[in-house]
Amino acid sequence: MSTTVGPTLIFQAVDLAGVLANGVLGGLLARRLGFDPVGFVVLALISGLGGGVLRDLLLQVPPVALHNPAYLGVALAGAAIAFLVDLRGTLTHRGLVVADALALGAWAATGATKALAQDLPLLSAILLGLVTAVGGGMIRDLVVREIPKVFSGTLYASVALVSAVAAALLALAGHPEMGMGSAILLAGVLAVAARRFGWVLPAATDLRPRIPHRRRG
Amino acid sequence: MSTTVGPTLIFQAVDLAGVLANGVLGGLLARRLGFDPVGFVVLALISGLGGGVLRDLLLQVPPVALHNPAYLGVALAGAAIAFLVDLRGTLTHRGLVVADALALGAWAATGATKALAQDLPLLSAILLGLVTAVGGGMIRDLVVREIPKVFSGTLYASVALVSAVAAALLALAGHPEMGMGSAILLAGVLAVAARRFGWVLPAATDLRPRIPHRRRG
Amino acid sequence: MSTTVGPTLIFQAVDLAGVLANGVLGGLLARRLGFDPVGFVVLALISGLGGGVLRDLLLQVPPVALHNPAYLGVALAGAAIAFLVDLRGTLTHRGLVVADALALGAWAATGATKALAQDLPLLSAILLGLVTAVGGGMIRDLVVREIPKVFSGTLYASVALVSAVAAALLALAGHPEMGMGSAILLAGVLAVAARRFGWVLPAATDLRPRIPHRRRG
Repeated sequence: MSTTVGPTLIFQAVDLAGVLANGVLGGLLARRLGFDPVGFVVLALISGLGGGVLRDLLLQVPPVALHNPAYLGVALAGAAIAFLVDLRGTLTHRGLVVADALALGAWAATGATKALAQDLPLLSAILLGLVTAVGGGMIRDLVVREIPKVFSGTLYASVALVSAVAAALLALAGHPEMGMGSAILLAGVLAVAARRFGWVLPAATDLRPRIPHRRRG
Repeated sequence: MSTTVGPTLIFQAVDLAGVLANGVLGGLLARRLGFDPVGFVVLALISGLGGGVLRDLLLQVPPVALHNPAYLGVALAGAAIAFLVDLRGTLTHRGLVVADALALGAWAATGATKALAQDLPLLSAILLGLVTAVGGGMIRDLVVREIPKVFSGTLYASVALVSAVAAALLALAGHPEMGMGSAILLAGVLAVAARRFGWVLPAATDLRPRIPHRRRG
Repeated sequence: MSTTVGPTLIFQAVDLAGVLANGVLGGLLARRLGFDPVGFVVLALISGLGGGVLRDLLLQVPPVALHNPAYLGVALAGAAIAFLVDLRGTLTHRGLVVADALALGAWAATGATKALAQDLPLLSAILLGLVTAVGGGMIRDLVVREIPKVFSGTLYASVALVSAVAAALLALAGHPEMGMGSAILLAGVLAVAARRFGWVLPAATDLRPRIPHRRRG
């Protein structure tokens, strides 16, 4: 136990930093849409805690975000910050994006690891990592009637997927903490690189042989 | 037990009146949108039962709305009324709005009290009161692609919040029934007053010192 | 046990064929919307597995789709097919629609039967049949910001309702397998007939006596 204090503390710090960052980002969306304080709170809670709550519901365990008061408190602090200060375009905003990317990896790892601890199959564990990482943002986008950004050509969900796979495989190999660390690192590096180099995913195709023919319309 | 028959009966009446009122209101939305009978049923069930089901899922207990047949029956009755009679603009419609306001308080109190009975922290109990009270309406608005009215500048969610706080504090002080009663009263009075006096919440601000400077764009 | 191998096998085949068909149909929607591979996977999983997961959450049991890896695998195969081949307008597409109709009945029956096995009231069992059958498609439509097709005048949800009622009544009468079979048959026949003959549901009405009077506006 004592030997895990180091990585556990780092992980908890990344986890809560992610809740704070997503709480502020949810609040910034509320500000852009001209919402009132209630709207700030709702979007901050959904952004910061939605993915983890969805994961815990799917795993049939009591939601951590309701039982550990730190989560609600930190998400509400994020809403308050976004309500009081206009952060758009500031250096702080860029810091939030980095914290969000690191949290994407942390949450992908938590979801996958928690699922494996319940003896779920590998594919389910990876899915739960993905749900934990992008679920909150997806519900938030739905609530304000935007097409979820997981569909928007950003690599957001792909980065979460890679992190979840890495965390799941390392956890299966008996190294859950290395899995957490790798997932966080991978997510940070990939998210920054995708943004810098403008990476996109390939579009759908049609593998059938192309035989010239006429079609209506 | 015998001494609680009075308040419990009153509470159950308000609770089911709220399910009926929300069932009818969901049905009226289906009528406005030109939906078929299935649409009436779906919107009535979501409006009348959605918040309570969401609460029970978050608390990891079997949904009351599925186990006690009165809830489904009353919500379906609401759908049938809205399908058969055009209530818009009638006195009955105004009665529905009042029943909806009282139910907002009743549901905020149930959510908060049920959460405290599970030893959840105060903040989580208040959140569950809020979810119970406004969750059904929020999902209903999402399903028909409207921006949820909790964001729309009405005090709907704020009233639920005040009721949940009152119910939670009184329940913690050992007076859960006084909490229920206060929440219902508060919600009724505040909802009517907010409508009458046009109360709104303050908009977001920017606390940073205003230094004149140029910005791009 | 040995006597149930026949119907059970048929039911499992219809169930997984439905997951595959809905996975492909979800993928075709992703193709129409120009989504990337992640979008194909998300829409295929929601379409193919969403209803069953929702049912299991409401019944407070571990989601089958997470515990039996066949479900995730088949849904992902559907996404891959839709990503690699443009099926619109082909004979295969018509086959998918039939598989989807049969699965509608199979899922309505599973939901109702699982609920009755938990001693839920008949009305709740029918509702869970309905949720299992149309829940996935409804969430999928929400995610891509379309009005759910259960509201759109197709008989999709009505067919699921009839199937759920038949399955629930036959299960209550001690013949769950006949219930499954009837639900699948009913759904297939009704879905094809509704499409062929253009059946629609009656619109809302107003039963109050029509007394001539003036109104504002």
